[in-house]
Amino acid sequence: MGEMVFRQVDLSTEEVDALEARYVPLTEAVRELVAATILSNADDDVVAEALAAVREVTAKLSASVETDHSGVNYNGAGRSWNWGNAGSGERNAIAPPIDLKTNPDGSTYADLVLGAAYEGPPGHVHGGVSALLLDHLMGVTASQMSRPTFTGTLTLRYRNPLPLGPIRVEGRVAREEGRKVFVEASITGSDGIALEADGVFITPTWSPSLEATQN
Amino acid sequence: MGEMVFRQVDLSTEEVDALEARYVPLTEAVRELVAATILSNADDDVVAEALAAVREVTAKLSASVETDHSGVNYNGAGRSWNWGNAGSGERNAIAPPIDLKTNPDGSTYADLVLGAAYEGPPGHVHGGVSALLLDHLMGVTASQMSRPTFTGTLTLRYRNPLPLGPIRVEGRVAREEGRKVFVEASITGSDGIALEADGVFITPTWSPSLEATQN
Repeated sequence: MGEMVFRQVDLSTEEVDALEARYVPLTEAVRELVAATILSNADDDVVAEALAAVREVTAKLSASVETDHSGVNYNGAGRSWNWGNAGSGERNAIAPPIDLKTNPDGSTYADLVLGAAYEGPPGHVHGGVSALLLDHLMGVTASQMSRPTFTGTLTLRYRNPLPLGPIRVEGRVAREEGRKVFVEASITGSDGIALEADGVFITPTWSPSLEATQN
Repeated sequence: MGEMVFRQVDLSTEEVDALEARYVPLTEAVRELVAATILSNADDDVVAEALAAVREVTAKLSASVETDHSGVNYNGAGRSWNWGNAGSGERNAIAPPIDLKTNPDGSTYADLVLGAAYEGPPGHVHGGVSALLLDHLMGVTASQMSRPTFTGTLTLRYRNPLPLGPIRVEGRVAREEGRKVFVEASITGSDGIALEADGVFITPTWSPSLEATQN
């Protein structure tokens, strides 16, 4: 198994928040650039100019890059950040714009709007994007914000096509057996329920919760 | 069910190829910008300048946008294109850089390298990204490049963590029953096999093959 390091970093929570505030607007802007790159009908000159500008921005941002992946970091105050996460990272323009909420009973949900970048069948959400959303939401649901978990088995039942636009994702822990956490989830779109999912998530033996590693 | 239109467009194959050649380098550049946005340690000034530049590029590209999603298009010569597809679209910087190959027996595979933008657990591929790759590869495998199919059920068994870096995705049709196509697939990474998957894909009743619609 590859090394999997959760890194403790010497930054105050205020410093982490400030870094996030610096990069979140850029991430949003890159997300819009992704959509424009798909949909534009611009001519050769405009696209060539855009290409040069994007490469210049990338070069300037890359001058200070020190690692080839973001990783999961946390500080001594219990603040953790996972900026590059493909399912939800605040600095990852690939991640669907998901803002997950937790109900008092531990169930979770998110309302989000999916546009051109998430398309599969014409006008509809890619089945793999739905899988990405569900894997992320179900993992967070299983972890209950207090322990790492890994996806064991994920079963997705595609009931109906999911139109692009507003969607709701919901999840809940059905039961636990030893290290296995059984999670159920669904995605509902403007035409009603589109997907149902069952997952088994595993709490690893090698790691106590993040809280415990900080003591 | 929402409308799902496969659009016939009056462009020659040469024109389609030229448009693709115009936008593919920009898409590659945006993909590198996504990674730089995750990994950069640039200061406020550099990030503010990057933000302004990205917004300017997006505005110029967006001036000619006419639709809110790309859709699936085809021309009279049988060339089809699906530029915005989240799993493989040539103009979608979110799509993993997958170049799918088909063996003579109809089985499929792709070798690709996944970097910072596809991370989940530290240093490893996000489980949902693996699901996106498998859903895409398995759908193409089921379609045999000649008929539309939709994901019915997808079951993913996560055997081992999948390190970022080079991976291989493979798929094959196990059997067919009426409108159901049963597909098996796997993902192998630098530590060996990471995921195995079974899927049931459905060929819709409402659509003949793309070839037939052009007659």
